[in-house]
Amino acid sequence: MSNIYEKNTITEDGQLMLKKAEKDQIETVWDRYQAQLPQCGYCEMGLSCRVCNMGPCRVDPFGEGPQKGVCGADADIIVARNLGRMIAAGAAAHSDHGRDLVEVLENVAEGNAPGYAITDVEKLKQVALDYGINIDEKAPLRIAGELAHAMQGDYGTRKKELTLVKRAPKKRRELWRNAGIMPRGIDRETSEMMHRTHMGVDNGWQSLLLHALRNALSDGWGGSLIATEVSDILFGTPKPTPNTVNIGVLKEDEVNIVVHGHNPVVSEMILQACQEPDLLRMAKEKGAKGINLAGLCCTGSELLMRHGIPVAGNHLMTELVIATGAVEMMLVDYQCIMPSLGTVASCYHTRMISTSDKARFPGMEHREFHPDNSRELARELIREAIENYEQRGQVYIPVEPVQSVGGFSVEAIISALGGTPAPLLEAIKAGKIRGVAGVVGCNNPKIRHDHGHVTLTQRLIENDILVVDTGCAAIATAKAGLKMADAIRYAGPGLKEVCGALGIPPVLHMGSCVDNVRILILASALADALGCDISDLPVAGSAPEWYSEKAVSIGTYFVASGVYTVLGPMPPITGSMNVVKLLTEGLNDVVGAAFAVEPDPEKAALLIRRHIESKRRALGLDAESV
Amino acid sequence: MSNIYEKNTITEDGQLMLKKAEKDQIETVWDRYQAQLPQCGYCEMGLSCRVCNMGPCRVDPFGEGPQKGVCGADADIIVARNLGRMIAAGAAAHSDHGRDLVEVLENVAEGNAPGYAITDVEKLKQVALDYGINIDEKAPLRIAGELAHAMQGDYGTRKKELTLVKRAPKKRRELWRNAGIMPRGIDRETSEMMHRTHMGVDNGWQSLLLHALRNALSDGWGGSLIATEVSDILFGTPKPTPNTVNIGVLKEDEVNIVVHGHNPVVSEMILQACQEPDLLRMAKEKGAKGINLAGLCCTGSELLMRHGIPVAGNHLMTELVIATGAVEMMLVDYQCIMPSLGTVASCYHTRMISTSDKARFPGMEHREFHPDNSRELARELIREAIENYEQRGQVYIPVEPVQSVGGFSVEAIISALGGTPAPLLEAIKAGKIRGVAGVVGCNNPKIRHDHGHVTLTQRLIENDILVVDTGCAAIATAKAGLKMADAIRYAGPGLKEVCGALGIPPVLHMGSCVDNVRILILASALADALGCDISDLPVAGSAPEWYSEKAVSIGTYFVASGVYTVLGPMPPITGSMNVVKLLTEGLNDVVGAAFAVEPDPEKAALLIRRHIESKRRALGLDAESV
Repeated sequence: MSNIYEKNTITEDGQLMLKKAEKDQIETVWDRYQAQLPQCGYCEMGLSCRVCNMGPCRVDPFGEGPQKGVCGADADIIVARNLGRMIAAGAAAHSDHGRDLVEVLENVAEGNAPGYAITDVEKLKQVALDYGINIDEKAPLRIAGELAHAMQGDYGTRKKELTLVKRAPKKRRELWRNAGIMPRGIDRETSEMMHRTHMGVDNGWQSLLLHALRNALSDGWGGSLIATEVSDILFGTPKPTPNTVNIGVLKEDEVNIVVHGHNPVVSEMILQACQEPDLLRMAKEKGAKGINLAGLCCTGSELLMRHGIPVAGNHLMTELVIATGAVEMMLVDYQCIMPSLGTVASCYHTRMISTSDKARFPGMEHREFHPDNSRELARELIREAIENYEQRGQVYIPVEPVQSVGGFSVEAIISALGGTPAPLLEAIKAGKIRGVAGVVGCNNPKIRHDHGHVTLTQRLIENDILVVDTGCAAIATAKAGLKMADAIRYAGPGLKEVCGALGIPPVLHMGSCVDNVRILILASALADALGCDISDLPVAGSAPEWYSEKAVSIGTYFVASGVYTVLGPMPPITGSMNVVKLLTEGLNDVVGAAFAVEPDPEKAALLIRRHIESKRRALGLDAESV
Repeated sequence: MSNIYEKNTITEDGQLMLKKAEKDQIETVWDRYQAQLPQCGYCEMGLSCRVCNMGPCRVDPFGEGPQKGVCGADADIIVARNLGRMIAAGAAAHSDHGRDLVEVLENVAEGNAPGYAITDVEKLKQVALDYGINIDEKAPLRIAGELAHAMQGDYGTRKKELTLVKRAPKKRRELWRNAGIMPRGIDRETSEMMHRTHMGVDNGWQSLLLHALRNALSDGWGGSLIATEVSDILFGTPKPTPNTVNIGVLKEDEVNIVVHGHNPVVSEMILQACQEPDLLRMAKEKGAKGINLAGLCCTGSELLMRHGIPVAGNHLMTELVIATGAVEMMLVDYQCIMPSLGTVASCYHTRMISTSDKARFPGMEHREFHPDNSRELARELIREAIENYEQRGQVYIPVEPVQSVGGFSVEAIISALGGTPAPLLEAIKAGKIRGVAGVVGCNNPKIRHDHGHVTLTQRLIENDILVVDTGCAAIATAKAGLKMADAIRYAGPGLKEVCGALGIPPVLHMGSCVDNVRILILASALADALGCDISDLPVAGSAPEWYSEKAVSIGTYFVASGVYTVLGPMPPITGSMNVVKLLTEGLNDVVGAAFAVEPDPEKAALLIRRHIESKRRALGLDAESV
């Protein structure tokens, strides 16, 4: 094994596939990253400004060149504006995803979405009650219509507070009101962020960052929460389900269909089509043993969580999955889909299909899904994928898949605990579980692939910290075997005892990126049970390999919700020590939590352990041992 | 006069004040622009990408270095994404401004906005009818409440089409529907733009640019139009009013109050306070002859249009106005307020006051205006400004003000024409007026201050093209004397005859930046009268000195509405010849209009004349002469 492969990724499938890609002369994300080095120092530090055409401007970090842009903005303002726009984009991405789900819910209610249905009526009713909808004697479809309408109101500009912030602890809501960061409308906060960052509007770096918190909260307690809840209503609230992960989930003798992206709306229809008898028969007629559906990234996690569908890989594996030559068709929806995928696929027989009206890609065929045509279009495409099986050349699937368990919604966790969070709280109080850490976020070629996620998670569970994870992090730890039931052998004695008794792994897959809100809801439940605020809990968050603007929004709503959060890669803010200090220290005075940045997962684990132990002490949980 | 001053600006007051600023060691926007040279070539060409933290990335324009970012995005995608975000910010700025006005309207309806009132009940009723509100026997305040509510709906996510697009010609609306660019929700289109430009979402440069058109239309036929209409309802629809312009409007022997920004909500209350007898008495007691209110930029134009309040200057003059030493207090709301102003003011006695909850500035005192406290706070601040008169040091007001006429709302123009657009149409048909050009936009130190606006306008009116203008352009031509009634002497014979008969100048001040929608409405009225689409008319737009993201949105909604538009400074798109070609040629096939870029106003005038003559020929207007 050449050093370069091992340097790029800790995963066996990744290393082997990188070698294959090299042989096939496939350019990967690591190659392009190398070609970009050295990256622009101004941009990296957040010191370049492009918000108007008097510029572009740059502030010299060494103090020799210009210290202000043409308008007069200094480093603090420029860095804060740039960060604000990153958060606006991240919040917009999640929230627009939520909007699309609400649109499906509305179409289901109106009978315009064949193939879709209300799967979790109980959750529909609960959420409708949260929205103040009278559900008495109403048919589920009518409730669904009213709920869709009410949720659309949260995207508007008439509300003073988003509806679902009521799920946050009372103290937290009061804090948001007092700090002036209570989110009002989901789209409104994004629009206002874009307005504030226009030349000559908000030139207070503190007020810009405060609004950035509000914008992120409109994601976490708005758009993302709506996305998760409506996904559960439409497709079912996840329950623990066994599944398999890594590139070995592809099958040499079946038609392999891969879905990639973030929104389950299309992939759920693909799943239905893959299970239809006539299409399975057709696959057999073409010489395949069956149709094998696998996921990538968050669309993968959505299917894994609800149906135990295998996941072939996370962000940095998406090009390499195609390089197996085993994929008949990849269907993408949106977010984190590298525009390079079409180029990679052109070297194999893989057909690449884009499906969303708002996301096209070079080298892909655009077949647009809408609620009314999804079922039929899914069938049509699977038929075409089966036809494509004959075009397959040599196939390289170098590893066996790893077993894992997913599906840990909050409801599933509470149910595993026997219907109440009390046993978890008791275990935390007793010190068997020291605390809970959310490990979330992406991959990034700046960090050795999966190393951050896996190493950090290992260190945490070894030290009796329960890990809940989502997104690419969740796939990374699954591939590393940390989500098998017997992974408790890697856990410290207390965590091992508790998880063993409950029959759950020490690392709980809570879903996709929008499902980070499940972590918030779990934290709220714990805070309510203890009668404290989220910021008082022995919990922490981490994004060891983040790359996307969505991750910045997630990290920000975690912190604004009171969760200490450790980032791996440094965000582009080092050009302003004022901004850095506010985010890593000052926010403690505003929201009771702050960021830390630590690319080394060993050190990040220490930071999180230290934080959790200090919160335990403050809560008096370890009073006897003091 | 030193060469550098003349090189920077064509204006006498600007040149003299630059000399004063140099003597006072005041750093100006021109100094900072010089210090930034050479500006980053990647950023200037739109080739640097910061939308994710795998980057920052750069595409080498010479084809030697990397041609793709880490994700695989090429120059076309990167340039289109960057441009999309500029438009999102511009649309958000205008639309958030509109939202704030709707909020005042709502508060007026609820009786929570002392000092504010419904001034134009007729317009209130007309707009309410556009929104389908039953106005029969309803009190104005009740209609106002319902209208505010209905307008908020346009900011939401439930509409399929914005309400006020109905004012566009039928053909145009059909074109938008067929092209998939009909704007739905005002904030929604901005949010979707931010989503689409996130890594791995829309990687089709054409589809990105199409959505950018939709986003801009949500500004032009949504947020900006609402801003203008509600401003008229609250503060009155402008009528032709004489006024004075340039730095000479400041008075040596009066308390000078300057309002700067874009939204009339605060400045209208300041105006009321400046006219109150007790405060006038107080000013006299302090030795001043009175209280002199003057405006800058678009807040200035808002007051000029409705009340004939003098305007001291446009964008590049805002620092220099302070350097007169004659300003007791400057109150700013938002947009285009250089963060350097506080620093400049610190060298004089001028008190700088920021007033908006979403815009703070270094070196300014923050006194937040809300509908319920505006009247009182305005009085309080004027009192403080009067107190500050005693602190005044040496004053330098080197020029006499220029006379001008403003206030040309569409209603005022139609009224000047005798109640119908027919006389204007007849003049156009007869060839006395060859066509109409909208000259709009900002100042930019990349262009000699006011040279673009004034030279272009002179060339157009000389050639019998009626000019309507807004924003900094409108202030520039006013300062140049082109808005005096006798400015018809600069016009060609036909235009001179028509304007002379009507008693109007050949250059009509139509308002602030959001009032560019007045130009759209005028164009729609002409198109409807001729039974054609806007793109068939002998009209054109130009932004000879634009700098802001708002201007990019304005230019884009002009083009998407069918108006050929010539930009002065080049937008950051030259890194992609595909994007350049689509914007300057391809859009003709999509929306019947396109952009041109020409920094030399002499050449820009030729482009516009050629365009107008070709449209005349196509309409058969000059059939006899062919």
